[in-house]
Amino acid sequence: MSSSWGERIQISLFGGSHTEAIGVNIDGLPAGEAIDEGQVLAQMARRAPGQDPTATSRREADTPRVLCGLLDGVTTGAPLCAIIENTNTRSKDYESLRRLPRPGHADYTAFLRYGGHNDIRGGGHFSGRLTAPLVYAGAVCRQILARKGITVGSHVAAIAGEADEGFHPVKVSEELLNRLNREYFPVIESTAQEKMRAKIEEARLDGDSVGGIVECAVIGLPGGAGNPMFDGVENLFASILFGIPAVKGVDFGAGFAAAYLKGSQNNDPFYYDGGGCVRTRTNYAGGILGGITTGMPLVFQAAFKPTPSISKEQDTINLPAHENGKLTVTGRHDPCIVPRAAPVVEAAACIAALELLAQSGLLSRQA
Amino acid sequence: MSSSWGERIQISLFGGSHTEAIGVNIDGLPAGEAIDEGQVLAQMARRAPGQDPTATSRREADTPRVLCGLLDGVTTGAPLCAIIENTNTRSKDYESLRRLPRPGHADYTAFLRYGGHNDIRGGGHFSGRLTAPLVYAGAVCRQILARKGITVGSHVAAIAGEADEGFHPVKVSEELLNRLNREYFPVIESTAQEKMRAKIEEARLDGDSVGGIVECAVIGLPGGAGNPMFDGVENLFASILFGIPAVKGVDFGAGFAAAYLKGSQNNDPFYYDGGGCVRTRTNYAGGILGGITTGMPLVFQAAFKPTPSISKEQDTINLPAHENGKLTVTGRHDPCIVPRAAPVVEAAACIAALELLAQSGLLSRQA
Amino acid sequence: MSSSWGERIQISLFGGSHTEAIGVNIDGLPAGEAIDEGQVLAQMARRAPGQDPTATSRREADTPRVLCGLLDGVTTGAPLCAIIENTNTRSKDYESLRRLPRPGHADYTAFLRYGGHNDIRGGGHFSGRLTAPLVYAGAVCRQILARKGITVGSHVAAIAGEADEGFHPVKVSEELLNRLNREYFPVIESTAQEKMRAKIEEARLDGDSVGGIVECAVIGLPGGAGNPMFDGVENLFASILFGIPAVKGVDFGAGFAAAYLKGSQNNDPFYYDGGGCVRTRTNYAGGILGGITTGMPLVFQAAFKPTPSISKEQDTINLPAHENGKLTVTGRHDPCIVPRAAPVVEAAACIAALELLAQSGLLSRQA
Amino acid sequence: MSSSWGERIQISLFGGSHTEAIGVNIDGLPAGEAIDEGQVLAQMARRAPGQDPTATSRREADTPRVLCGLLDGVTTGAPLCAIIENTNTRSKDYESLRRLPRPGHADYTAFLRYGGHNDIRGGGHFSGRLTAPLVYAGAVCRQILARKGITVGSHVAAIAGEADEGFHPVKVSEELLNRLNREYFPVIESTAQEKMRAKIEEARLDGDSVGGIVECAVIGLPGGAGNPMFDGVENLFASILFGIPAVKGVDFGAGFAAAYLKGSQNNDPFYYDGGGCVRTRTNYAGGILGGITTGMPLVFQAAFKPTPSISKEQDTINLPAHENGKLTVTGRHDPCIVPRAAPVVEAAACIAALELLAQSGLLSRQA
Repeated sequence: MSSSWGERIQISLFGGSHTEAIGVNIDGLPAGEAIDEGQVLAQMARRAPGQDPTATSRREADTPRVLCGLLDGVTTGAPLCAIIENTNTRSKDYESLRRLPRPGHADYTAFLRYGGHNDIRGGGHFSGRLTAPLVYAGAVCRQILARKGITVGSHVAAIAGEADEGFHPVKVSEELLNRLNREYFPVIESTAQEKMRAKIEEARLDGDSVGGIVECAVIGLPGGAGNPMFDGVENLFASILFGIPAVKGVDFGAGFAAAYLKGSQNNDPFYYDGGGCVRTRTNYAGGILGGITTGMPLVFQAAFKPTPSISKEQDTINLPAHENGKLTVTGRHDPCIVPRAAPVVEAAACIAALELLAQSGLLSRQA
Repeated sequence: MSSSWGERIQISLFGGSHTEAIGVNIDGLPAGEAIDEGQVLAQMARRAPGQDPTATSRREADTPRVLCGLLDGVTTGAPLCAIIENTNTRSKDYESLRRLPRPGHADYTAFLRYGGHNDIRGGGHFSGRLTAPLVYAGAVCRQILARKGITVGSHVAAIAGEADEGFHPVKVSEELLNRLNREYFPVIESTAQEKMRAKIEEARLDGDSVGGIVECAVIGLPGGAGNPMFDGVENLFASILFGIPAVKGVDFGAGFAAAYLKGSQNNDPFYYDGGGCVRTRTNYAGGILGGITTGMPLVFQAAFKPTPSISKEQDTINLPAHENGKLTVTGRHDPCIVPRAAPVVEAAACIAALELLAQSGLLSRQA
Repeated sequence: MSSSWGERIQISLFGGSHTEAIGVNIDGLPAGEAIDEGQVLAQMARRAPGQDPTATSRREADTPRVLCGLLDGVTTGAPLCAIIENTNTRSKDYESLRRLPRPGHADYTAFLRYGGHNDIRGGGHFSGRLTAPLVYAGAVCRQILARKGITVGSHVAAIAGEADEGFHPVKVSEELLNRLNREYFPVIESTAQEKMRAKIEEARLDGDSVGGIVECAVIGLPGGAGNPMFDGVENLFASILFGIPAVKGVDFGAGFAAAYLKGSQNNDPFYYDGGGCVRTRTNYAGGILGGITTGMPLVFQAAFKPTPSISKEQDTINLPAHENGKLTVTGRHDPCIVPRAAPVVEAAACIAALELLAQSGLLSRQA
Repeated sequence: MSSSWGERIQISLFGGSHTEAIGVNIDGLPAGEAIDEGQVLAQMARRAPGQDPTATSRREADTPRVLCGLLDGVTTGAPLCAIIENTNTRSKDYESLRRLPRPGHADYTAFLRYGGHNDIRGGGHFSGRLTAPLVYAGAVCRQILARKGITVGSHVAAIAGEADEGFHPVKVSEELLNRLNREYFPVIESTAQEKMRAKIEEARLDGDSVGGIVECAVIGLPGGAGNPMFDGVENLFASILFGIPAVKGVDFGAGFAAAYLKGSQNNDPFYYDGGGCVRTRTNYAGGILGGITTGMPLVFQAAFKPTPSISKEQDTINLPAHENGKLTVTGRHDPCIVPRAAPVVEAAACIAALELLAQSGLLSRQA
């Protein structure tokens, strides 16, 4: 189903920007896992708007209410459903969207898909706001992974041409990931953030927006997880990552850059480390060979297009009039969503990593 | 399942490099579709090895035998199963692989995954040879798509840094795609091929290999196909494309390049063309907004890592001895698989496009 | 997933007897379908307890709150999530269940499955209360089916050996079904109800319970819907019906009785009726041949075991003490759930019928 | 997909009565499982026609050819595909079926479903012959189960009103099941077989057919396997059992008879046996409570309608002429398929039991 993901750990997102509530139902979690609410709220805060001039000034009260699935803060094994009430909704901003579809948004394609019956307010079910329950689900999965020694973190690898340094694909550390996965606007090299912020501010002042890249790492995964062909680790992660609004590209390890390497460079030589463990000297594979984990860090990138909501006047069509028209999108928007996207990418990675363990027989039904 | 793909049109690949036979079972095809065997064989010939110095000199007799599903060349609606007998197998080349896993291959991860029980001969089920039945399935789907006015074609966009010109994302034509989808080593600009061939030959003489990028277009898809979130067109295509061996990155439209654009550039303005049809002036979206087709050409890229089989000596581990070792891969290998990968990418796109129609209620159960 | 059902129309149930709320998320509904709340509430009222001495005297305020998916009472095509707050909960009744699993209930198997972390209060996620959101989902689907000329109704075919007359499998009428599907304790022959009520009362006074059979019919389904083998209509309906608590048997048409017939009796002869339509003179097939609908009424039965909650003292185990023990279940319970089960069976049939249409390409994505 | 079943252990059946070959692809088997060919052939022999006057005199050479998935008789973990060539095909018997659909067969519904493009010869993909590869797959799964102490066996519980005694639901033994699962026409009480044979012979001489019931038991399953609601053990088994041609009813434990019991009878009291294991004194639940195994024997029944192919003249329609007609089915047919159905039911149970273990995290990916 379009708003559900996963076979063993299934998340189902529901709601829209201006519906009564949005939420997520998570089915298949192991029973007996304590879920710390503070850690969940900390992840949700990283995604929340209104923190910073790089993002929209809209404020959302994103406090999730758990309807079921936890008993005294511990998973029961039954579906965990959490909802977030929608309160701060300014529906009037969106009145004209049914007439004039916004370029770069799903207004027009949703019109075709749903015959005009879709909820247009705030983008409806296509709204980036749906990433809030996704982060909720990711934060739950993250805590289960942590107990298995698996850590997920990401950083803003690039915005509008300004690049952070990349993860060292062999040596990425738990310490670094745990620093990054607590930050708003995480970067490895702090000076990179200044340059990125300057680009975002420039776009904001110009009524424009900019895109970027999030690089994410998952460490602690055992080797041998995953499957060949269509059930490989890349397929699994890509299938959830492309569900994040604005993601237009995903690659693993050297990824697109591998296309420019020679085999003698890109092949990662195996060796036994001092402790008798098999490792690779390089990690162009991003921790995956033949769809199966090597045990080295899993590293991937997701490319985000610039926020389609911009203040500049744009050409579009007037649907009821069947003629060309002009549109100026009003309201408060993010000049760049990439910093807020980092925790969303991590959330997707946490969910995918837990599903990977479950599919690989490495996740018991009880804690 | 790892070797099956699709919900409405399900393909299941089976076999390995040196098993009795390999094949594909296709379930869910509409009944009453005439399948021309010659067109199928033409697609399979594009993928076959041994045609050219850019590829391995191994020859395969890839004549598929249809066991069921066609009656007088027309689909019955029941599963269509086709097999290809394996004949030219030189098992001795692979004897040492159980001891010394090849860097860049799945030998080591398969050892972990299957506890050493997997068929190591020729890479077993991980072999690129499994793309032969994938191309078979794609060629069947392609003929059904053609009757609906949908055309798929691709070209080698880059090899080792030498680039072909890209598809014009708004104007890519049926004529161009139909020229490309008949060629071995398809390129838009013929001079690009010379430069690519030079790079491949250089790698071959050096006992090395090179990677590259395939760009693919699907035209004729109706607008409004697909779904939001996890069932979007990008998710669907990525989930099959990452099943092609050696694919390490996938992007759509401007893709990773969108991360460097501004919103005012990347947003594609809508307009009514002379005939009252909605189109976009640019197509940075690659024909997809919110996971749903716009009706503009669907354009995507797949990045291929360099062939991991190279003739150079490589460091690896000696598994039974638990010590580091050296490996020289013998046998005949492709210095570059990208030209042969183009028809495989197209096949995956044909299967995904037919599945997309079926999921979107645009494919009848009877022709 | 255990609490989700369906590929095209997916329902996900969540919650437990004593959680904050219970609910259902429905994904895949066509857009543009008006859903009348009154009709939904009427179906939910049929299932509600406390109406009658045949059932528990517990009262539930089963008013569903729609969180999303409807706009002005019309489906948007996005997931429809509805919740029911739990208010009348008497947790103290269930304190001892963790020690002394109730015979006939899932207490012991849930203990094994969830390692004791499951929510035991009121049966938790295994509670019959979860049929309330199932009826909600069925009532939504029923209204969409009605616009396609499809009607679903059922009756209590038997309780404790007292039988109602059966549906006439060829002539079951819309009028009859529409009478039955509005009633609490629906029967075809009114005198049957008296006898059944007497049996229930007898069991109630004795602190015991009785089981029974619900027979259900779906009329108006087009011929040719469904699939062979594992995706047949029987498989589809059985896979949801066995999800209703207490169902231990399902059969179609003559069903188990067909085992006692001869082929010459059980084969339903085809004929053209006056209007040129193909019909069968008998309908032992229950409207299904080879997993595919014939166009005749779809008729099936579901067998319900007696309510496992009885007031009599029962032998069981004392889990923490690892010794045998005695248990007397207190609280208010249904001496017979079969009358309340009829609307639940109908709800499951409505959901399955809509899924069947969707899988068969007979349900558009837009009303 | 209609001809595939299972999420973790997926079987895909292909072929038809008169196609080049029929077969099965099994994906998801654990690696490293030795499969004895003799045991597989013994199971296939039980299903083969032509052994006995109770069945058709047609002979089939059902020798399967394994294309892939076994290496030296041991599973590799890659898909196992086995085919059976079709040789003894008498196509002429079926020429008239396109005109005159056989009552009780899928000829008419397939005509609607496939628009007349389906392969009508011998019933095509609807043929009972497809149970041969199903038995193949079951025989593979059975050997894996046996190593885990799980045994499956069945008997002909009834034919045309003549009944065998039933399994003792608490004490059914491995010895009994292992006697039954080697026999053609298995019964518990040998005198029952005589009476059943008499009924079959009577029907045969009269050009008619009779139906019956197969009762099956699975012992050795651990408690705690399975899931609540729609992923329960009943749902899982029913979803594959209704895929066997002619099955019209399925029940578990007391099943339909439970509808006639009181709660105080039907509730199975728990107790600790001498060895500290939890058991139930009775087993009306058939080994399943709340969709989850209790650890007691899993017992179920499948009802088979009488073979629709009979020699008597029958009323039907003449499709091209749009008028009523008469049909006499010629060729060789089974007056009763129930004895040959017993190994098919067992095969389905073996596949479902292995899937159940896999879904419950009780089946490792490596032997």
